Amino acid sequence: MTASTMTIYDFPKGPYPTRVRIALAETGLDSQVRFVMVDLYTGEHKRPEFIRAKNYSGTLPVLELEDGTCIAECTAITEYLDALGEAPILTGRTAREKGLIHMMSKRAELELLDAISVYFHHATPGLGPDVEHYQNAEWGFRQRDKALRGMRYFNDVLTTQPFIAGDTFSMADITVIGGLVFASIVKLPVPDECEALRAWYARMRERPSVSKQPAFN
Amino acid sequence: MTASTMTIYDFPKGPYPTRVRIALAETGLDSQVRFVMVDLYTGEHKRPEFIRAKNYSGTLPVLELEDGTCIAECTAITEYLDALGEAPILTGRTAREKGLIHMMSKRAELELLDAISVYFHHATPGLGPDVEHYQNAEWGFRQRDKALRGMRYFNDVLTTQPFIAGDTFSMADITVIGGLVFASIVKLPVPDECEALRAWYARMRERPSVSKQPAFN
Repeated sequence: MTASTMTIYDFPKGPYPTRVRIALAETGLDSQVRFVMVDLYTGEHKRPEFIRAKNYSGTLPVLELEDGTCIAECTAITEYLDALGEAPILTGRTAREKGLIHMMSKRAELELLDAISVYFHHATPGLGPDVEHYQNAEWGFRQRDKALRGMRYFNDVLTTQPFIAGDTFSMADITVIGGLVFASIVKLPVPDECEALRAWYARMRERPSVSKQPAFN
Repeated sequence: MTASTMTIYDFPKGPYPTRVRIALAETGLDSQVRFVMVDLYTGEHKRPEFIRAKNYSGTLPVLELEDGTCIAECTAITEYLDALGEAPILTGRTAREKGLIHMMSKRAELELLDAISVYFHHATPGLGPDVEHYQNAEWGFRQRDKALRGMRYFNDVLTTQPFIAGDTFSMADITVIGGLVFASIVKLPVPDECEALRAWYARMRERPSVSKQPAFN
């Protein structure tokens, strides 16, 4: 399996697709992948054929291998891409690195990115009435507040270390970037007093793997 | 770092702690770990000192290393434990294995285990009024229905392959086991017609790493 035979089902400015696009750029594989646009706003990702053939959970992005095997979920795709190289650069080399990176990436989903996603789909118009068939606004607003607390938590983390999972850039940084991309879409700005988080994000946006993404252009 | 210096903050019959207990047994590390009981029913895991010192998200289990570093989240702990051995046995060796195992494990969280957890905490008495300060029953019931669909999905998967992520036992099987442990606690039986899932679960409960767990005794 070489990279040139891979397909990514993509929505270029989406927060989750942006995570995989950054991982592709960091691992140097992005020019070798075919991107297929899936229109979230018409609910293409929720159609039975997409769910059956590509991803049971009906989300983007999905990586399709040459033999038709589909790998969904950003963490899983990042693990796959990172294992294609000679040594992992995003998911950790030692047990300790792997544990801390996976913990912080999952925490960034729970406490920031996924929380904002629920807020978007449940307490704002989201993808519109044709796609959002069920909304629970009260749950959505709870998740928005959780995400704001999450920003303060990651700010605290970044007052003592340069990256989300320690001393080096990793998948965990990418997940927080995804969270702040989504925060911008839903107009939930990082609080002014979160200076360490804001400074980290400014540094992240200077990385070529990040600055080139459609979400930032 | 050797295993004998590790501490697990644990609730022995809990579905998530059971995942890590199975991973410890599969990797042969379980006899070398110190378990510290944290009482979920008095909300010990939600107290400020636990959240500050052990796990921001206030959940169990947590793995503490000799130097005090805490690794929360079952996937992260499993990655850590699996990387201590000579070669991974639970999280995949090749890029393809890693991708599929992480996808199916995450899917088992999203579509089964985490969904049942939300149902438990939001649409049943959960851990009781002293711990469950906010409940959203409507959201909880939606998640219960999602989990029932998830059981049918994993049943379909198991009609064509012997394990959740393919031909070998992995972290993804452990996550579905956690889901069915929680399903039993909330009295949400696997539908009779899910024969492949029921047969797989019977096989799983015969594994020594599984049958010895407090959740099954």
